[in-house]
Amino acid sequence: MSERISRRTMFGLGAAGLAAAAGAGALATRSTPQQPTTAHAPSPSDPFPFYGPHQAGIVTPAQDRLHFVAFDVTTTKKAELVSLLQEWTAAAARLTQGKEAGSFGAAGGDPEAAPDDTGEALGLPASGLTLTIGFGPTLFDDRFGLAAQRPAALADLPKFPGERLIPEISGGDICVQACAHDPQVAVHAIRNLARIGFGRVSVRWSQLGFGRTSSTSRAQATPRNLMGFKDGTANMKLEDTELLRDQLWAAEQDGSAWMAGGSYLVTRKIRMNIETWDRASLREQEDIFGRDKGEGAPLGKKQEFDAVDFAARRPDGQPYIAEKSHVRLAHPSAHGNAHLLRRGYNYVDGSDGLGRLDAGLFFIAYQRDVRKQFVPIQMGLAKNDLLNEYIQHVSSGLFACPPGVQDAGDYWGRSLFG
Amino acid sequence: MSERISRRTMFGLGAAGLAAAAGAGALATRSTPQQPTTAHAPSPSDPFPFYGPHQAGIVTPAQDRLHFVAFDVTTTKKAELVSLLQEWTAAAARLTQGKEAGSFGAAGGDPEAAPDDTGEALGLPASGLTLTIGFGPTLFDDRFGLAAQRPAALADLPKFPGERLIPEISGGDICVQACAHDPQVAVHAIRNLARIGFGRVSVRWSQLGFGRTSSTSRAQATPRNLMGFKDGTANMKLEDTELLRDQLWAAEQDGSAWMAGGSYLVTRKIRMNIETWDRASLREQEDIFGRDKGEGAPLGKKQEFDAVDFAARRPDGQPYIAEKSHVRLAHPSAHGNAHLLRRGYNYVDGSDGLGRLDAGLFFIAYQRDVRKQFVPIQMGLAKNDLLNEYIQHVSSGLFACPPGVQDAGDYWGRSLFG
Repeated sequence: MSERISRRTMFGLGAAGLAAAAGAGALATRSTPQQPTTAHAPSPSDPFPFYGPHQAGIVTPAQDRLHFVAFDVTTTKKAELVSLLQEWTAAAARLTQGKEAGSFGAAGGDPEAAPDDTGEALGLPASGLTLTIGFGPTLFDDRFGLAAQRPAALADLPKFPGERLIPEISGGDICVQACAHDPQVAVHAIRNLARIGFGRVSVRWSQLGFGRTSSTSRAQATPRNLMGFKDGTANMKLEDTELLRDQLWAAEQDGSAWMAGGSYLVTRKIRMNIETWDRASLREQEDIFGRDKGEGAPLGKKQEFDAVDFAARRPDGQPYIAEKSHVRLAHPSAHGNAHLLRRGYNYVDGSDGLGRLDAGLFFIAYQRDVRKQFVPIQMGLAKNDLLNEYIQHVSSGLFACPPGVQDAGDYWGRSLFG
Repeated sequence: MSERISRRTMFGLGAAGLAAAAGAGALATRSTPQQPTTAHAPSPSDPFPFYGPHQAGIVTPAQDRLHFVAFDVTTTKKAELVSLLQEWTAAAARLTQGKEAGSFGAAGGDPEAAPDDTGEALGLPASGLTLTIGFGPTLFDDRFGLAAQRPAALADLPKFPGERLIPEISGGDICVQACAHDPQVAVHAIRNLARIGFGRVSVRWSQLGFGRTSSTSRAQATPRNLMGFKDGTANMKLEDTELLRDQLWAAEQDGSAWMAGGSYLVTRKIRMNIETWDRASLREQEDIFGRDKGEGAPLGKKQEFDAVDFAARRPDGQPYIAEKSHVRLAHPSAHGNAHLLRRGYNYVDGSDGLGRLDAGLFFIAYQRDVRKQFVPIQMGLAKNDLLNEYIQHVSSGLFACPPGVQDAGDYWGRSLFG
């Protein structure tokens, strides 16, 4: 019975209260991840379904807050890893619906046991929490016998010009992306997964983010990054059904059947030299992006969503959109129509000890094949983008995110481990 | 005219639009900081008044997000410091009302100049932003001739048992606390103050926080800290008018007339060993706090706000509230009725490189005299609190927060510098 009561009613209920509450928190119905489960008008408090053909947290309209974690697997036993994935899946199915990580009622009933939920989200609603798991290239080494199942599309990223990656905050065997409208809910979820994983995984690195820097649905306004520009205007969005099929979701014919319905994730922590940027003129800033700062329109156009015209020239004969501008180099037309589904976040990690804020963009991008999408796009940017003067890539992650969990008998990664 | 238009309408308006918008963003009226300026039902988007006898951000109902910054003053010229305080005050008066830091319209009109706002909050409402300034003990050294004006109540904190303070993230000449319901708005404000201060101050340290861990009004529900317990049940609150007069606001008779209407601020970054805590039994956790985890009631009582009875004993003869429990040691009755107005925040700063989340509480407390309030309370806790096994104080800040800014002719710290 305690499986079905929501966090809101978890505590302080006697037996009668439990009985009354038992029908209230119906489990999520099977539907597409982008639809809230509730019948009333969607609110930021609502849950998204956990079960479905794809994992939630990819095309789900980007929530406002992020807690991203990368784990190292510390157990050497495949069976222990599989058990962990099963336990995590059960916890994630509860957490995303606004419940506690475990059956708190039972543990709460035994005061001599550690509670099987840490408690800081008690009373908080689901807050749109999604939990999305991915498997890093290192998981496919010789520890668990998975080498033959490493997808070709999970290709090691090349070294990009100018990057200065910090190994301690890069990579990882397993990642979990928690997105929610309330950071306490996202932090609570990651912390409880880490708690459940004790002795089998350890936290390699983690990152908080705020202020989503892309829209993943046309129903969302385009947000701004910490350079003050709208970001993600041309992002692949959940309404682009054919494009998602072609460029987001892995398919059986791609060579790794276990990934069908999954997607490949690249993360990059991109430090911004914001103090330098803030002293650049508005003209230079706009020339670098190729868009105007206020409206976000391509230079020479009026509206944010006006098509970019790379051939258009100003009265003085110069192109409106500079040859090395960000919008030109990142545009699908520069890379054989390669798209990304981005859902990054702004970050501020305090200060850097040199009188500057430690701030930037935690870039997150999903795609069908990193060799055809992130790698060529980023190589073009790393070589030529005018923006490079103001940014530095300091961390990198690469993960294969398996398909969704079908039902309560399924678990994260079953197609790989089962 | 551009002084009066709100951020929402700042961009993309022609002359006609500007004229129509000019009356829409009326300046804040003088009122008490805890009242939103708008006439409709308060929403998290609304502004709080900037002008008033006290600074906003102290008794203002605690907002959900924090960006706190400590600056070192790098100029040695008092006149430059005073100019900076005047510029900051003008920017703060705008930012807290949902406008840009400067007159963006003018700078936006000169593409060869750096914009005088960084832009990432364009389109976002005021979001309850408050900006609260404080002056650290080091500002009263021999650089600016202020030594004689250092308040006695701004007494250096003693070394507390067990603390392990990191100098690089402690202290500072000047602090600014930005609280808002949207982290992007709080970050934007601090970043623009840092930008304005370039060449005169540099960022010494900064801290983001989420999930306020205290209520400062009886209208707010008590939130939970990252140990999963309700925090701040017995906090001094804005409705406690007499108590605020006696224990929050500095008064002329305290000896430093320039601080009358101000308050003294202590910050402590308290790292939690959450992985260890999460393996402690529910009974141990509740005994340490002296409250039950679900409801937050004192042990032996039923409801959160039931009075604590330190004499009550269980059937087995032991006290319900352990002698070294947090609630007993921190209670005003243990310190001659000394209270604090706390408005701290949870933090997660990624991970610590040892497989653990770097998480805890950024403690913020306002008071009339640290010698009579924070120091004795914290000394009692540092010596005896059962909680010490699970926490570590790693940073400390101490600041004299001057009275409020009266009007557009006044500025932060005028009573000290003027």
